[in-house]
Amino acid sequence: MPATAITGAVLRRSLRAYQVYGANTGVGKTVMSTILCGALHRAFPQERVWYLKPVSTGPQDEADDGHLSRFSPQTKSKTLVQYGEPVSPHIAARTASTKLTDAALREQIQRYVNDCAGQEQGTLLVETAGGVHSPTPSGSSQADLYRPLRLPVLLVGDHRLGGISASISAFESLHIRGYDMSTVVVFEDAQYENHLYLRDYFAKRDIPLLSLPPPPPLPPSNNLAGDRERMAEYYEEMASRPAVLDTVKALATSHTARLARLDSMAPQAHKHIWYPFTQHSGMTPASIMTIDSAHGDFFQTFSSGQTEKKLEPTLDGSASWWSQGLGHANPQLALAAAHAAGRYGHVMFAGAIHEPALSLAELLLKNLGNPRMQRVFYSDNGSTGIEVGVKMALTAAAKRYGYDDDKRQGKKMGVLGLKGSYHGDTVGAMDCSEPSTYNERVHWYEGRGHWFDFPQVKMKEGTWIVEPPEGMESEFGPTQEFASLNDVFNVEARDGSAAAEQYRKHILETLDRLVRVEGKTFGALILEPIMLGAGGMLLVDPLFQRTLVETIRSSHALFSSSSTPPTTDDTTWTGLPVVFDEVFTGMTRLGPFSPSALLGVQPDISVHAKLLTGGLVPLAATVASEAIYNAFLGSEKSDALLHGHSYTAHAVGCKVAETSVKELLRLEASGAWDAFKEPWKGLKEHKNENEKGEVWSMWSPTFVSTVSHRVEVESVVALGSVLAIKLRDENPGYASNAAVGLQSALSRLSDGFGIHSRVLGNVFYVMAGQTTEVDVVRRIEERVLGALAG
Amino acid sequence: MPATAITGAVLRRSLRAYQVYGANTGVGKTVMSTILCGALHRAFPQERVWYLKPVSTGPQDEADDGHLSRFSPQTKSKTLVQYGEPVSPHIAARTASTKLTDAALREQIQRYVNDCAGQEQGTLLVETAGGVHSPTPSGSSQADLYRPLRLPVLLVGDHRLGGISASISAFESLHIRGYDMSTVVVFEDAQYENHLYLRDYFAKRDIPLLSLPPPPPLPPSNNLAGDRERMAEYYEEMASRPAVLDTVKALATSHTARLARLDSMAPQAHKHIWYPFTQHSGMTPASIMTIDSAHGDFFQTFSSGQTEKKLEPTLDGSASWWSQGLGHANPQLALAAAHAAGRYGHVMFAGAIHEPALSLAELLLKNLGNPRMQRVFYSDNGSTGIEVGVKMALTAAAKRYGYDDDKRQGKKMGVLGLKGSYHGDTVGAMDCSEPSTYNERVHWYEGRGHWFDFPQVKMKEGTWIVEPPEGMESEFGPTQEFASLNDVFNVEARDGSAAAEQYRKHILETLDRLVRVEGKTFGALILEPIMLGAGGMLLVDPLFQRTLVETIRSSHALFSSSSTPPTTDDTTWTGLPVVFDEVFTGMTRLGPFSPSALLGVQPDISVHAKLLTGGLVPLAATVASEAIYNAFLGSEKSDALLHGHSYTAHAVGCKVAETSVKELLRLEASGAWDAFKEPWKGLKEHKNENEKGEVWSMWSPTFVSTVSHRVEVESVVALGSVLAIKLRDENPGYASNAAVGLQSALSRLSDGFGIHSRVLGNVFYVMAGQTTEVDVVRRIEERVLGALAG
Repeated sequence: MPATAITGAVLRRSLRAYQVYGANTGVGKTVMSTILCGALHRAFPQERVWYLKPVSTGPQDEADDGHLSRFSPQTKSKTLVQYGEPVSPHIAARTASTKLTDAALREQIQRYVNDCAGQEQGTLLVETAGGVHSPTPSGSSQADLYRPLRLPVLLVGDHRLGGISASISAFESLHIRGYDMSTVVVFEDAQYENHLYLRDYFAKRDIPLLSLPPPPPLPPSNNLAGDRERMAEYYEEMASRPAVLDTVKALATSHTARLARLDSMAPQAHKHIWYPFTQHSGMTPASIMTIDSAHGDFFQTFSSGQTEKKLEPTLDGSASWWSQGLGHANPQLALAAAHAAGRYGHVMFAGAIHEPALSLAELLLKNLGNPRMQRVFYSDNGSTGIEVGVKMALTAAAKRYGYDDDKRQGKKMGVLGLKGSYHGDTVGAMDCSEPSTYNERVHWYEGRGHWFDFPQVKMKEGTWIVEPPEGMESEFGPTQEFASLNDVFNVEARDGSAAAEQYRKHILETLDRLVRVEGKTFGALILEPIMLGAGGMLLVDPLFQRTLVETIRSSHALFSSSSTPPTTDDTTWTGLPVVFDEVFTGMTRLGPFSPSALLGVQPDISVHAKLLTGGLVPLAATVASEAIYNAFLGSEKSDALLHGHSYTAHAVGCKVAETSVKELLRLEASGAWDAFKEPWKGLKEHKNENEKGEVWSMWSPTFVSTVSHRVEVESVVALGSVLAIKLRDENPGYASNAAVGLQSALSRLSDGFGIHSRVLGNVFYVMAGQTTEVDVVRRIEERVLGALAG
Repeated sequence: MPATAITGAVLRRSLRAYQVYGANTGVGKTVMSTILCGALHRAFPQERVWYLKPVSTGPQDEADDGHLSRFSPQTKSKTLVQYGEPVSPHIAARTASTKLTDAALREQIQRYVNDCAGQEQGTLLVETAGGVHSPTPSGSSQADLYRPLRLPVLLVGDHRLGGISASISAFESLHIRGYDMSTVVVFEDAQYENHLYLRDYFAKRDIPLLSLPPPPPLPPSNNLAGDRERMAEYYEEMASRPAVLDTVKALATSHTARLARLDSMAPQAHKHIWYPFTQHSGMTPASIMTIDSAHGDFFQTFSSGQTEKKLEPTLDGSASWWSQGLGHANPQLALAAAHAAGRYGHVMFAGAIHEPALSLAELLLKNLGNPRMQRVFYSDNGSTGIEVGVKMALTAAAKRYGYDDDKRQGKKMGVLGLKGSYHGDTVGAMDCSEPSTYNERVHWYEGRGHWFDFPQVKMKEGTWIVEPPEGMESEFGPTQEFASLNDVFNVEARDGSAAAEQYRKHILETLDRLVRVEGKTFGALILEPIMLGAGGMLLVDPLFQRTLVETIRSSHALFSSSSTPPTTDDTTWTGLPVVFDEVFTGMTRLGPFSPSALLGVQPDISVHAKLLTGGLVPLAATVASEAIYNAFLGSEKSDALLHGHSYTAHAVGCKVAETSVKELLRLEASGAWDAFKEPWKGLKEHKNENEKGEVWSMWSPTFVSTVSHRVEVESVVALGSVLAIKLRDENPGYASNAAVGLQSALSRLSDGFGIHSRVLGNVFYVMAGQTTEVDVVRRIEERVLGALAG
């Protein structure tokens, strides 16, 4: 099967293209199209007019394109798919010989658009069938099927009894799918006056409305010629009306204005936007990407060349900073957001409960699979979620170990973590990480704690290895080779290995030095489980993280000389509260719902954001055990966790997150990723595999191995939807430019799409969404191999 | 005019009430209602069945309630308003003698519901007219008019050609308004098979669908009696069908399940939610408010008594932590959110631009009226917005004054501010405030800076005064009395006063001591302009803040011994960068769009959140001058402001904010607040009033004066939508309980609604929204006066 072309949103300088939607069936879409085509010929006699009916049902001789050809003969009209039966396309298609997929239909339209755009200036009307949500041949909704093209809409309103409601609901269905409404056209009816009501309604929304008298009634007669003549007269009169000519001229004006706005956006942004994480010096408007819309895995980006201005599909290769999973502009999430907005707006969350906040909390507690967890604290993003988590941990530790008896000791509590960790950009979150380029220039930053070196998992020249940090073989042992990535993650089996023993020894010696010799105080262990994202997509040896957690948990005596260790069960924390920052690695990003499944150890506090809301709106959840929570119970209000944000547990975020989490779980349970998992299965070497902790990637093992053999590649990692390629570079680190060449090569249009990516120093990474299709992932793989070769 | 009752959402244990909506007109709402009524009588023979048609048009003898009475004679049916003309209610109402407002119609329905609920157990069907968006007598949409009642919906789908689309669009219009869909009912049509498609469609959304054969065709005949008999037979057969009986039984089951869930929500929340700013010790499930939905100014809260369980309207008296302005569940904002979600989802914002982010930035820069401002940096909430603002200011100051030459000096930079200030709960935002109950227990908190005492504006016993802090008359002068609040804010006139001179002297002496004697280093002045919210709704003498800003701006020499002061113009910062935290006080909360208008001085950096998005979703904008921005230009990436969040400038937030800001500006420009302003106008004593800096409150001056005379009241302030009453208390401060009595008295149901409020120690406050009606504000005033008297 040949690969389907990636659909791009349609915008061309030379072509004004519109989608004609009807508020209902029988509202006169074809008649209105015929009038508009006639007016276009009059208003722009030098230009072309095209009319496309993608799907038509009923006898050929009654088809809409035939009507167009008859009454607007100058218009070039075409139907792509004609079903003979006069029923809905999804019924007609059942008996058709070949199945027409949505993607194939979009591709045909796109090809037609390209043909039109290759000719002189002109206008194209693409007429839908029935109402906005009438089924397509595949059974999907037209409004969803055509959305990736995102043509501006000409909505034909319903002039009949009940037509006000039908017109407004149709508008809303299109509006919430991100369509732009160009103009509403509607027939006039003196009794119902829908056009008057709708004119006011749409005027308030800055949408013009054109109303016209309906066609002459044609009662049953045998005088076909006479009927046609009367229709022709009607069309002649309508298409010459000043209001109609003004409407088609306004379409041209707004097309030009849209292009002008798109042209001006990068310069305006260059002038007025202060970008996150961006050195603006040397930045030019040309380096700013103008995103007109997005759909699925792709941005629709504006390309303004010398001769043509258009939109092009550009893969969102960083999953918009690791946040995307269910596709851009997912209608299910848009509806969830709107439903919560329409039911609550936002309601304050101190001492109050609403359904989305409670449902999400219950859903998380149930599915994280962590018996420790009992409590959910909401905030707005990963950074605030971490600040909350650290406050929780430090207070719990201080309370148990009496650190607050001496206020200075309480204040100097630090955290234990890994080198290269990143937890966010608010000062409290920054303080959890060691000094680095990210934070060294921030005046109030103060790295509070100790960060361990750690052995990394990588594939080098076809072999999965666990490599100690350079020059630290005495602490971490020699490089270990594994037959498969699955073997690396078989941590239970590795628990008894020499490596585990060496890790334990190194950790204990380090802790002893820090606490007993240097007199440092610690209040938490904070880890990004499995993979350090911002640090450079570093895959940590899971055995090391597991050993670190377990060693600290069994080191009560180190932190307390006096108190007796608490009775240990699955829910009490010991040693130090363990905080997992799962903002990037959680929620199926690396495969399992929680990365804890891959480690076989559970945190006392976990922080969730990014994919939590499926990539739509900010929300964070800090989940904690009851033991942690109990540390804040007291007689004074000041004993409590006095942290909050205005929009804490905002209903829109909670509802979108609930919908996203359910969808991610559904994808997992329904085997949606089986095609990705399949090639990884043969690589298993051990039995008794923990299903929850299955190790696989959307990037195929063959591809990963091939990449690892390339001469410019130092190493590569792939897990879940993440692929990261470390390039050889003389000057590695955040300031490196090694990956920029690869990034630049991939950004160019090829195979019908560009790839937008972010790099981390000499690490180039691409991240798929949780709904990215196999075909798209394979095509990205081809592009990456091609770019590496070049 | 008697006050209209506050509409509550309808839920009673003894009454199952539903709204019957049609996917279009003519889809058989009344026939379906008749069938369901018949089935209800069969399934629950001991129960009552009511049928209500709020608005009907056409001849009386053809009315739907007549049809019901005939074919389901046991059902008690009623029409509230009957228009004789067979056209849409908005047309029929034009010639009616009395105008029917939406609120009045809702009140009539509510009264009817109360009547029904007062009788035995039963079911009520409230049948709408036409389609979901068909106009009401006032011209609004039915879906909006009936939304405050939020009855579960029985949607009658459209079985005709085009009916799939009509049914789905109608569902979406209801769904995005926060309605719950109970069941879809639809006639079967063998040709179109809409019911089959829709059954699958709604099953995916967990909504059951019941399909039934349509009524027998009744061709034109004179045999009225025969027709009626055939209809009666049809009804008899349909109402006895097992599927129909199952459907009405399922309605009863889900009603019980809904009540059970509402009953369990507080206990579940008590078990699993960790609340912001809340001491959980001693908290019980009964102290948790269950919010089922919200609309306008009101939560709909669940009340579970011994005999009755129901929803009650509860005023959102804290404007949900000062975030609300355009009403809960505003459909305009819900649609804006959904449109952006449908067009983009979220797209990453490093080096990219999208329309909502750019439009919002342009809108803010244009309307803040601050010639300094050129740049907008987005983040997620007020706290992160402040962290960004502080990073900006400190770096700009350090760069100009060479503080980084000695790294320790750079690190010890503090801020100048006011005592009692609050800027958020992330560590960097906390560090901007002096030690207090909010932060003293946070281990990583460190108050960095100096915070000035300041004179407060308050009304005491009918007089507006400016009062120095206790025992600080030598620094701030004696208490000043003013004829009006407007006079207090006439800062230009007060510039030359003795008070101004004294303020200046105190500020300069303090700065000199801090910098020259104590050797402290400062990098910013951070103020909440006009009013300190969390500190206790403290109204600061605007002359003091103005003098503070101007004195620091003219104190270049104090901060730099070597560098020459920059050429002063309206855009360059001098002395220290001035940061205004307008999160609470901005966006018309205190009247003007920016509180700077009341001070007559402009910041170099301003932070906006809360009302920025009209109260729907989190978003913050940190706005800065080009001079501040330039401090981050450099050859290295590490010179840049390396701050960002995954959802930076998320399209949903930006689009909602753009819509909100435009609506707030429209309200201001259209004179929407004139009725509130009017009583404050007579109190002006000076001319040349700055229109942008107009001083007024939604709380009437008479009311404010009356409150100030009450014996338990120490003082009161009112500005914009904020009212704050400071109560006399032996033990003031955050730990005080003085206001709790007032809070508790107001929480009880009276005049048809309860009032939910938050208190700040001995300060009780209520905050209206920007769309709260005069009538509601006046009724709250009455309640407050009553509670104070009691």
